[in-house]
Amino acid sequence: MTAKTILTCLLAGTFGFISASQAEESLPSWNGTASKQAITDFVAKTTTPGSAHFVPEPERIAVFDNDGTLWPEQPMYFQAFFIFDRIKALAPQHPEWKEQEPFASVLKGDIKAALAGGEHALIEMAMATHAEMTTEEFEEIVRQWIKTAKHPTTGKPFTAMVYQPMLEVLDYLRANGFKTYIVSGGGIEFMRVFSEEVYGIPPEQVSGSSIKVKYEVRDGKPVLARLPELDFIDDKDGKPIGIHRHIGRRPIAAFGNSDGDFQMLEWTTSGGGPRLGVYIHHDDAKREWAYDRESSIGKLNRGLDEAPSRGWTVVSIRNDWITVFPEIAP
Amino acid sequence: MTAKTILTCLLAGTFGFISASQAEESLPSWNGTASKQAITDFVAKTTTPGSAHFVPEPERIAVFDNDGTLWPEQPMYFQAFFIFDRIKALAPQHPEWKEQEPFASVLKGDIKAALAGGEHALIEMAMATHAEMTTEEFEEIVRQWIKTAKHPTTGKPFTAMVYQPMLEVLDYLRANGFKTYIVSGGGIEFMRVFSEEVYGIPPEQVSGSSIKVKYEVRDGKPVLARLPELDFIDDKDGKPIGIHRHIGRRPIAAFGNSDGDFQMLEWTTSGGGPRLGVYIHHDDAKREWAYDRESSIGKLNRGLDEAPSRGWTVVSIRNDWITVFPEIAP
Repeated sequence: MTAKTILTCLLAGTFGFISASQAEESLPSWNGTASKQAITDFVAKTTTPGSAHFVPEPERIAVFDNDGTLWPEQPMYFQAFFIFDRIKALAPQHPEWKEQEPFASVLKGDIKAALAGGEHALIEMAMATHAEMTTEEFEEIVRQWIKTAKHPTTGKPFTAMVYQPMLEVLDYLRANGFKTYIVSGGGIEFMRVFSEEVYGIPPEQVSGSSIKVKYEVRDGKPVLARLPELDFIDDKDGKPIGIHRHIGRRPIAAFGNSDGDFQMLEWTTSGGGPRLGVYIHHDDAKREWAYDRESSIGKLNRGLDEAPSRGWTVVSIRNDWITVFPEIAP
Repeated sequence: MTAKTILTCLLAGTFGFISASQAEESLPSWNGTASKQAITDFVAKTTTPGSAHFVPEPERIAVFDNDGTLWPEQPMYFQAFFIFDRIKALAPQHPEWKEQEPFASVLKGDIKAALAGGEHALIEMAMATHAEMTTEEFEEIVRQWIKTAKHPTTGKPFTAMVYQPMLEVLDYLRANGFKTYIVSGGGIEFMRVFSEEVYGIPPEQVSGSSIKVKYEVRDGKPVLARLPELDFIDDKDGKPIGIHRHIGRRPIAAFGNSDGDFQMLEWTTSGGGPRLGVYIHHDDAKREWAYDRESSIGKLNRGLDEAPSRGWTVVSIRNDWITVFPEIAP
């Protein structure tokens, strides 16, 4: 028996063991409701050797939206707070922003007015703050910001506001041989800075929206310069496209929370064999936020209508989650 | 001690064992020359715990060009043979091709004339044969073709012409905790069909040139439709950009064979800490092909000039490889 064979056997044994007896213990922040059952049943049937629904390990791909699925998105996307902080930091170099919307409103602290221009205004602000620097410079700015920035209503670091039950799902799937990916409308380079530490998801397993970059040699040193030009929007129809580009095979499990995730769940659950589609429904105003059909952020309307007929699980934060946020910041 | 801890220890022990005593046995098709030494020295110093040059496992990313690096590219790119075969298969549906270049020349069997139009002609033929179908249909066409097509001069299946010494490098790096990626100017969807079986590289670790796709629901079934429009050219400057998009961190080892790989080697070896840049030099007309500075395919000119001053290893197929192709088709 070679070392490799021994290792393979041990791995198989370990996963089998986890599937069989640790399923219940693996999701301690989940109530024992139908939602939890749907997740553990899916994992049991896809990972039990000999099961009619067994899926070989390389095909065990699970994709997760980020905003509203792994961490909150209220009162606005967390990356928008980053953008506003960057506008304030860069304002001395841009005296014209005092008179120029949407920047002028941000500098006055009027976020509502700043966002009145909708997606166009947000993209304009993203370009002004995310480009004209190298990829390494951008990563360092995000790294410093995420360490110190605080959520405006909870006062907690953003990375302390990840959903504890979802961290458990990520761990549980990985312990059962799944590869976990983020597929988010948010900026790919923004998330990659903290995805490994916060979610255990390495940068190569993060897909998201992007701006163009250019390869340049400056004083003999190559850099990737970030350009103020959109490259890809990883939302709605873009999600299955981003999955195809980045992963190259169809996931067997998808977790989202809004109509922006609809196509990702549709694409995932339309494949053959066992499939899991999960929507996180924000219905807990007391512990988190409550919003769905009418929300400008994270609107969930078509998804709520069609989830039952499509066999998708709708997780109620209020009823299905024992705890929402980690007791101790990760 | 938890099962996870035991597993971690065993993995660490296994890799340590392989590094220490199997380095020599791991590359049996390599002569014991400076090229082999450069590869094994690099792996030893980056994987030996306590070494000043130790690199943690998640950072052990190695990237490989495909055409001319993992398999040949003469008398032309293997994907071009696929394109020509597709043109012949599709000709009955395109009577106009009989009069229309470059298709007319392909149908007459005059490949030289077909390629006279250069890159423009090749892209036109690629669009005509790679688009207007779903991603799943395309994968199936490639799967059937790669099973049956034969190289015009060797008469072997293309997948039997992978370089045995490079298969050993891939295995050796993976056994030492490296993640191996393809970063090729070739079509990403073309390579993904066989990369796992032939190279042990799963689709999610393949990056390449791509055309656009569109998400559509047809009769209730979602598909990704391939469009006749270029999305990304993963060559020259595009290689570091593709690496950044796809992997999100800088590799520590890069293997290429042409000036199209120059920027990939430059980007890889400009990072801090230990780095490995390798060029495969085609100098063996007897067992493979001999070409470099003047070749229209796989031109290696600047790379040959600058390799010494940049500390890159130039592998001579003639002198460094004991065998070129596998004895038995993989």
